[in-house]
Amino acid sequence: MNLRMDPLEAIQLELDTECSGGRAFRQLEQKFGRMRRHYLEQRNYIIQSILGFWMTAFRNRPQLSHMDRGQDADMLRYVTNLEVRELRHPRTGCKFKFFCRRNPYFKNKVIAKEYEVRSSGRVVSPSTPITWRRGREPQTFIRRNQDLICSFFTWFSDHSLPESGRIAEIIKEDLWPNPLQYYLLHEGVRRARRRPILIREPVEIPRPFGFQSG
Amino acid sequence: MNLRMDPLEAIQLELDTECSGGRAFRQLEQKFGRMRRHYLEQRNYIIQSILGFWMTAFRNRPQLSHMDRGQDADMLRYVTNLEVRELRHPRTGCKFKFFCRRNPYFKNKVIAKEYEVRSSGRVVSPSTPITWRRGREPQTFIRRNQDLICSFFTWFSDHSLPESGRIAEIIKEDLWPNPLQYYLLHEGVRRARRRPILIREPVEIPRPFGFQSG
Repeated sequence: MNLRMDPLEAIQLELDTECSGGRAFRQLEQKFGRMRRHYLEQRNYIIQSILGFWMTAFRNRPQLSHMDRGQDADMLRYVTNLEVRELRHPRTGCKFKFFCRRNPYFKNKVIAKEYEVRSSGRVVSPSTPITWRRGREPQTFIRRNQDLICSFFTWFSDHSLPESGRIAEIIKEDLWPNPLQYYLLHEGVRRARRRPILIREPVEIPRPFGFQSG
Repeated sequence: MNLRMDPLEAIQLELDTECSGGRAFRQLEQKFGRMRRHYLEQRNYIIQSILGFWMTAFRNRPQLSHMDRGQDADMLRYVTNLEVRELRHPRTGCKFKFFCRRNPYFKNKVIAKEYEVRSSGRVVSPSTPITWRRGREPQTFIRRNQDLICSFFTWFSDHSLPESGRIAEIIKEDLWPNPLQYYLLHEGVRRARRRPILIREPVEIPRPFGFQSG
């Protein structure tokens, strides 16, 4: 019996360890992660030199365009870069960082908002308190007009909005991966292009975490 | 503007295609798939020469041991090999194939049972009709005694049992990946071993498809 059992144990060990390919897959993930970060840095470098890039991208993304209204539209002009990262293990969720130029509305240079899925399933989304310049607090915070609730800075600071999680998903899964397609919807009208651009249709985003406000 | 936009388009194209690593991950999956099939064939080759290997493995796996009772225990002795495969895209689910030696109970040489998750979310699980030899239909099918409902061949042929999906998951996710650990629980008692074996604790299986009978 041992003559058959020892080779069987050796084969089972191979199946349990080598054949899973865990190490090789991790190495490949790291390689493409590095490549991705390299191109994202290059992309950021160019985008920050285009005035109002993110404001335009937000405005042209269906389901986000309503966030770019009133004073918020003008404030969004000062967002020079956006960074979206997964939270590090063991935390689950993601973090949005908005880098801002000096502007007449608030003093922060970087503002961040997190969506963390706790082990209970509840999602919490703290954000950087915004230091408004005197008399520049946006009116939307007063909530007198329900229509204004969903402006960009209300989404950023108010964690109880029902659509908060959905907006975060659209930014993370569609706007941030390819903002250029939305920027060019605006730009395309004004530019005499040398060749046609393939613009992707806005897609329905799957809901990996089922973000809920909390 | 074009001077900035064309490099941005090139970078975005890299991010959308090369950086996803789709091709490299597929190649790695294929490589480890081939390696895995190679070792599984070797494992099958050895297992089929050990009389009653699968019967013993079933008997020693908690939550499956009750399936190996009465006439079924004797019939399971004739199962020489088990094969579990994912269904091919676009179908979702898996297929169990049991290879059987010539035996006094039924005529089939291979019997198969599928669990397919339909787009509606409903799980269907058709199986090969068993051609019983005259007078050998197992009594469990008559269902006079509710205790006998969950014998191996009742699970195989009856698609309405509440625990059917759970049993399929245990076979797919735990018994089939490493049947040796359960076979040796029995064997270990009789063998004078040269070195101790690490036996894994039976694990709680996650439910990827939430198999439901139907």
